[in-house]
Amino acid sequence: MPAISRRGAAMPASPIRKLVPYANEAKKKGIHVYHLNIGQPDIATPPVIFDAIAEYANTEKVLPYGPSDGLPELKEAISDYLKGYNIDVAPDEVFITTAGSEAIVFSMMAVADPGDEFIVFEPFYTNYNGFARMADVKLVPVTTSVEEGFHLPPREAIKSKITERTRGIILCNPNNPTGTVYTRDEVEMVMEIAKEHDLFVLSDEVYREFTFDGRKHTSVLSFVSEADRVIVMDSISKRFSACGARIGYIVSKNRGVLETLLKFGQARLCPPTIEQVGAIAGFRHISEFMSDMIAEYERRRDAVYEELMKIPGVFTRKPEGAFYTVVRLPVENAEEFAIFMLKDFNIDGKTTMVAPANGFYATEGKGQDEIRIAYVLEVEQLRDAIRILGEGLKAFGK
Amino acid sequence: MPAISRRGAAMPASPIRKLVPYANEAKKKGIHVYHLNIGQPDIATPPVIFDAIAEYANTEKVLPYGPSDGLPELKEAISDYLKGYNIDVAPDEVFITTAGSEAIVFSMMAVADPGDEFIVFEPFYTNYNGFARMADVKLVPVTTSVEEGFHLPPREAIKSKITERTRGIILCNPNNPTGTVYTRDEVEMVMEIAKEHDLFVLSDEVYREFTFDGRKHTSVLSFVSEADRVIVMDSISKRFSACGARIGYIVSKNRGVLETLLKFGQARLCPPTIEQVGAIAGFRHISEFMSDMIAEYERRRDAVYEELMKIPGVFTRKPEGAFYTVVRLPVENAEEFAIFMLKDFNIDGKTTMVAPANGFYATEGKGQDEIRIAYVLEVEQLRDAIRILGEGLKAFGK
Repeated sequence: MPAISRRGAAMPASPIRKLVPYANEAKKKGIHVYHLNIGQPDIATPPVIFDAIAEYANTEKVLPYGPSDGLPELKEAISDYLKGYNIDVAPDEVFITTAGSEAIVFSMMAVADPGDEFIVFEPFYTNYNGFARMADVKLVPVTTSVEEGFHLPPREAIKSKITERTRGIILCNPNNPTGTVYTRDEVEMVMEIAKEHDLFVLSDEVYREFTFDGRKHTSVLSFVSEADRVIVMDSISKRFSACGARIGYIVSKNRGVLETLLKFGQARLCPPTIEQVGAIAGFRHISEFMSDMIAEYERRRDAVYEELMKIPGVFTRKPEGAFYTVVRLPVENAEEFAIFMLKDFNIDGKTTMVAPANGFYATEGKGQDEIRIAYVLEVEQLRDAIRILGEGLKAFGK
Repeated sequence: MPAISRRGAAMPASPIRKLVPYANEAKKKGIHVYHLNIGQPDIATPPVIFDAIAEYANTEKVLPYGPSDGLPELKEAISDYLKGYNIDVAPDEVFITTAGSEAIVFSMMAVADPGDEFIVFEPFYTNYNGFARMADVKLVPVTTSVEEGFHLPPREAIKSKITERTRGIILCNPNNPTGTVYTRDEVEMVMEIAKEHDLFVLSDEVYREFTFDGRKHTSVLSFVSEADRVIVMDSISKRFSACGARIGYIVSKNRGVLETLLKFGQARLCPPTIEQVGAIAGFRHISEFMSDMIAEYERRRDAVYEELMKIPGVFTRKPEGAFYTVVRLPVENAEEFAIFMLKDFNIDGKTTMVAPANGFYATEGKGQDEIRIAYVLEVEQLRDAIRILGEGLKAFGK
């Protein structure tokens, strides 16, 4: 029997999903599992999106290929949507992808060759690891810490990681998994370093709207003089609570990048047609639901932070955006604790599933005592889930 | 401004889509373009598929992530569907992908490392080139010819291409772009070579049902003793006339391959949810529409072949399956001719778009005088399109 590839063997299992078998076992025993491990919101997808999809399914006769760069109406809708943030992007500078996932892997492949490097701030969205493996590029981590609220380290700490193979800096703002919203000064520092070393900046802005306490999001696209080195990666999954739609997009003003994306895009033909139709409706009606959704996440953020602060030995900063937080626990091995919660613990038939944070770091040994929490449930459920987490911590290792 | 990657620059433009700008120009001038360049059927998507999608959109509140390996109901439906071909595949041996495209690139990456090789019979589905570029693997072509109806060459011609880096043989059966249906003896020969050299066989069986004149399709899965080296790649695009759905799947009985696919799959989270719901309905109701669809394609095949045979200097064999044929034209440069048809030729305001076949070959210089035709229009339109092609040939180069 022939062997699988080395890259296949080296591919990391998702830290978000790898404990799913334990969760399934718990559920078989009748235990209710609060899923704080994955960013799957319980918030209703705006009905205009489902309505547009139903309308399409009720009227069309053939479900055809779309253009490789996406439906023109969707590109226009996104161009108009970005104007609302004073970002001037033409429809032909928008490339529709099959979810944020494809946006990331296409962006990496468009600017980096096998063996090339990207600088990334750890902890980072764990699937960057998988995409880097697929694209055969190396992620070079710059570590941020829970004490600093995961804000960026000084300029020199970043510059010291740049080598001949560095092709770009990956920024995720607001940040998954940390919930950090970078200040304008921080984003500007990244842009300056990129300019100085002639690097691309790949900016994951999936959580653009998800900022709390009146914070403003700074898009890399607002640095217009550096537009050629900027690639924005985005997705409708969280903004429209439509994770299953698999619609994302890339913004670039660099003609070479756009032409390359089109060639990658032609190879895989097109993104899903029906779900693009839903996305058009979402962008056209975003003002009708977005602020309510953010207010709800801010309430959840408050509840989660409040409950976490009640647990002895737990440390985290108040999340500034997105709907995640990375929390340091008073345990040596957070993965063992996460498994314990699923295998060996429950209160009144309920337990809490979290993602061990070690998989969100590239530096070996980092994040062993941290977890990521996604606050994607209603406030009362979140409070209950965090209380159970606290009780689990008391029981763990006894 | 930083440069794009070498692999991006080296990525081939799709020969199926790269002439689209010429077609758009023709349309702007009011010319009707018969699209024989792309396998986008005009046949109605079975209404049960649209109904299932509309039902989902009308009843669900949240459009969530699905499992990374696809919805269990879809995996079961495919397992049952394959039983209809005496192929015994368990649901957990089915991995749902975002279209056949992802099935191909995941399969390549699962078994080959950068620099590894696959043997492929040329002309081949042109997007294999793009996927090989993305996966950083090399396609080693074994040439087949229009005179032989693109059937496989003798065993030694294939074996002579095997090197230390060869990881597998890619078979597309029934074949896109040639319309060839390989005999059981041919498939068996490929399986024997794979066994002898311990290679994988990656079999693209998207057109499984599309066989004419009573021919039977031979799946590599029917060679059960070699199941561990077999990977089947499939898609609903053509079978359900649902190209825009972007739902495909991989079948493997090799645990290592399945585990690797799951890791790739977890990185990109999941395939589109709603369109999987449509696919379930398609597989459950396939017996209600499939034979009518094949009969229609056989009528089209007859019409296209009959009209082609009327054109002086044109050579092709009668296609045996799928809905394509590769045709040798009495021209030196078929790409120039294809552009001429769009730019400089029409009859009564109509012209015909075809795909130059050179992009379907990996060997430099091959296929210069050939085109691929997709017979995806109604019979009378096809006859008109081929007649116009014949008139275009008379006018070309004068």
